[in-house]
Amino acid sequence: MGPEEFRAAGHELIDWIADYRARIPQLPVQAQVGPGEVAGKLPSRAPEEAESFRRVLADLEEIVVPGVTQVQHPRYFGWFPSNATLSSVLGDLATSGLGALGITWQSAPALTEVEEVVVEWLRELTALPEGWKGVIQDTASSACLVALLAARERATNYSEARGGLQAENAPLTVYTTQHAHSSIPKAVALAGYGRDNCRFVGVDPVTYAMRPEALAAALEADVAAGRRPAAVVASVGTTGTTAVDPVAQIVPLARQYGRWVHVDAAMAGSALLLPEMRWLADGVAGADSLAWNPHKWLGTVLDCSLLYVADPDHLIRVMSTSPSYLRSAVDGEVTQYKDWGIPLGRRFRALKLWFHLRLDGVEAIQARLRRDLDNARWLADQVSSTPGWRILAPVNLQTVVLRHEPDGVVSATGAVLDPGALNAHTLSWVDSVNTSGAALVTPSLLDGTWAVRVSIGAEPTERQHVEELWTLVKQAAERAG
Amino acid sequence: MGPEEFRAAGHELIDWIADYRARIPQLPVQAQVGPGEVAGKLPSRAPEEAESFRRVLADLEEIVVPGVTQVQHPRYFGWFPSNATLSSVLGDLATSGLGALGITWQSAPALTEVEEVVVEWLRELTALPEGWKGVIQDTASSACLVALLAARERATNYSEARGGLQAENAPLTVYTTQHAHSSIPKAVALAGYGRDNCRFVGVDPVTYAMRPEALAAALEADVAAGRRPAAVVASVGTTGTTAVDPVAQIVPLARQYGRWVHVDAAMAGSALLLPEMRWLADGVAGADSLAWNPHKWLGTVLDCSLLYVADPDHLIRVMSTSPSYLRSAVDGEVTQYKDWGIPLGRRFRALKLWFHLRLDGVEAIQARLRRDLDNARWLADQVSSTPGWRILAPVNLQTVVLRHEPDGVVSATGAVLDPGALNAHTLSWVDSVNTSGAALVTPSLLDGTWAVRVSIGAEPTERQHVEELWTLVKQAAERAG
Repeated sequence: MGPEEFRAAGHELIDWIADYRARIPQLPVQAQVGPGEVAGKLPSRAPEEAESFRRVLADLEEIVVPGVTQVQHPRYFGWFPSNATLSSVLGDLATSGLGALGITWQSAPALTEVEEVVVEWLRELTALPEGWKGVIQDTASSACLVALLAARERATNYSEARGGLQAENAPLTVYTTQHAHSSIPKAVALAGYGRDNCRFVGVDPVTYAMRPEALAAALEADVAAGRRPAAVVASVGTTGTTAVDPVAQIVPLARQYGRWVHVDAAMAGSALLLPEMRWLADGVAGADSLAWNPHKWLGTVLDCSLLYVADPDHLIRVMSTSPSYLRSAVDGEVTQYKDWGIPLGRRFRALKLWFHLRLDGVEAIQARLRRDLDNARWLADQVSSTPGWRILAPVNLQTVVLRHEPDGVVSATGAVLDPGALNAHTLSWVDSVNTSGAALVTPSLLDGTWAVRVSIGAEPTERQHVEELWTLVKQAAERAG
Repeated sequence: MGPEEFRAAGHELIDWIADYRARIPQLPVQAQVGPGEVAGKLPSRAPEEAESFRRVLADLEEIVVPGVTQVQHPRYFGWFPSNATLSSVLGDLATSGLGALGITWQSAPALTEVEEVVVEWLRELTALPEGWKGVIQDTASSACLVALLAARERATNYSEARGGLQAENAPLTVYTTQHAHSSIPKAVALAGYGRDNCRFVGVDPVTYAMRPEALAAALEADVAAGRRPAAVVASVGTTGTTAVDPVAQIVPLARQYGRWVHVDAAMAGSALLLPEMRWLADGVAGADSLAWNPHKWLGTVLDCSLLYVADPDHLIRVMSTSPSYLRSAVDGEVTQYKDWGIPLGRRFRALKLWFHLRLDGVEAIQARLRRDLDNARWLADQVSSTPGWRILAPVNLQTVVLRHEPDGVVSATGAVLDPGALNAHTLSWVDSVNTSGAALVTPSLLDGTWAVRVSIGAEPTERQHVEELWTLVKQAAERAG
């Protein structure tokens, strides 16, 4: 496709996107298709001859749109905000249009240097420690794996340079909580520590945050048994309840053993742009790394995760390679981001962050985040003051964990008397809300029974939409009995 | 930014991209900036207030464009083709505009099912074994790491579910060649095998392909010493010389020990779309996995790597997680790609492949690949028939590895008599070509001395541009003495 054909099709597609975004509020939130329905509409072989753009666009409209859950919908309250701000979409289009190749500084100096500048902008905006250096990864899953690889190599004095983890004698252990995101035990497993060596430290029964005394006990028990603590992964804003592990208390415990502390703030990191929310990261200056995802609440279109490290030289030593065809005269003077993560080839992801921050401006972004926090407090107030409803976890951020508890299934002290009936009731009304297409919320297990997460923060979600959600939820729960 | 503001800015950006692509031939190929030059033009803090789109676009033009090496240039012959076809750029814009979230099938059924269909289209187009299943990864680096994690878990009967690699007694070993891409030993190190356990098997002195008898000897020696072979990574089209390891001979050797064979065809995979080039993958039906990058020669804009596996159930067992908030009623009926790789959150990358194949059509893509193969053969013929010049490796694909060898530095039998002088000469003329901005080629060490890779295959590169390159190269080498 040549530039002129692209120009014509591109204008059509821009108009299509603008129109699509404008009509999202009229679409069902949850995709209304069954397994195999989308695939069944597609031919089984690639076309030999070029098809018209009009035809491809028609399939986008008729096959793809009904087949995606509309996470840009104002009544999307599902997993977590996954905003794709249109300012960042423009940045991402610039990236693809440029078609630059990020393998070394030399292959695209601007790709490296815009990234350095923009991750530093965000370090300053989120008040992370001066001197920490950042890099864009695809997701917090990869960032956590990278952090645990760095931790493994610190704990083993670079075993990768010798016989690897398999040459180590005493098993290395990693600590997090049962409320940690699934990507953390996954990273523990993939990094070769073994799932048995992942300790799920106990949490406070009210806040669901890691109990420092339980961490201390777990560390001591492992050391006494001849094991070697390698890393603690603290969650700042867990997926289930937005619980905040106390980083300031965790750091000195890990430091006793000289071990790595990684802070997983995938969702909550956006809140660090608000000075009044910086308590979330209290103590982070003593940690080794922190990751958060602008592709969630902040709204830089997928995929964009920021990993900050206190000691980039260590990370580079763990990750670096230098084949002859990638060497250049400026090595040593420039940042080579290929040595800060797993992939060699890197997309120019910094442009979408750059466009996003510049075209929206920091003040407007902060105002939106504050709006969402206000909306969550408003909803929590409604729930708390409505008989038969309960808030199940502190509302630290923009997520409200709630439950409708009909008479008789929960005791006066809050103990669940009939978990089977309560779970059936919860899943029933959640399903009726979600399948209606009017809104989407996500159920999640909490202390063994199902709770409902209302994760507020889609870019178009105003108070009115939260009010509508609350009405929908009450009606659905009452209808479910 | 609202839809109408996006519409206006989007039209401007589409026009800018169309104009930019049209004028790339007038730009210097290699970025003409020094370290820190781009960063020095950017403010040190993010803007509090929104900036105009015009201003951001002006910076894109004035700061970013001069700061990237123009890999979409017709005289780009550097590292490898990194085509960003405009058809795939449209698909990627659709992805960002949709703003879908890929975490589970439920979050975006079309994201999963278009991916399943399109990777199957490409499986069939590349004649990979029926029944193999594919998934899109970001890069071949990640795909190789995933394959080596799968290999590790097969060799240890799922040690990750227990004490991990550190609980294993006999060291696991991995086999590849010294011509393997740097991402392979990196993946060996990251997966915890240890660099000492990565065996660089000897290559044929003429073809630079793995010698099966050397592999057999290495396997036998390790087994005799009590070590356990875990994986062989065969390179089909190495980065240095596009050497092709003999997969058909490697597979039975690895099979003796029941071990994983991963085929790294990152660059060369595109050639499998041509029936006459399928010899590259002879024997692949006995392997376990293969990865190749549509974001290279094929031209689906970064990042897009395909990983195919013979046994997806094994991969899923190694990679899967199932937290309560990601469970749904259709689990078991659908593909959950989160369990096929490292990241949980996945971009809708299949759209760019879908747009690319449909808007360009397979025949036109095949014709372009054949054009590039022809151009490489043409250049090789010129080099071979020109006194003082030599082809240093078989031209299996679209890369020509050449050298200018002035009188006296190389003997009549091809032995390098004065490597210092030859290296200085080579690096000097390459530098003069590259810094001129007229073309870009990449030097690479081969048998200890520098050679020059001319990697043909940028989308706009026609015979005329290869002729121009050959003239430039001859002039530069003659001027260098």
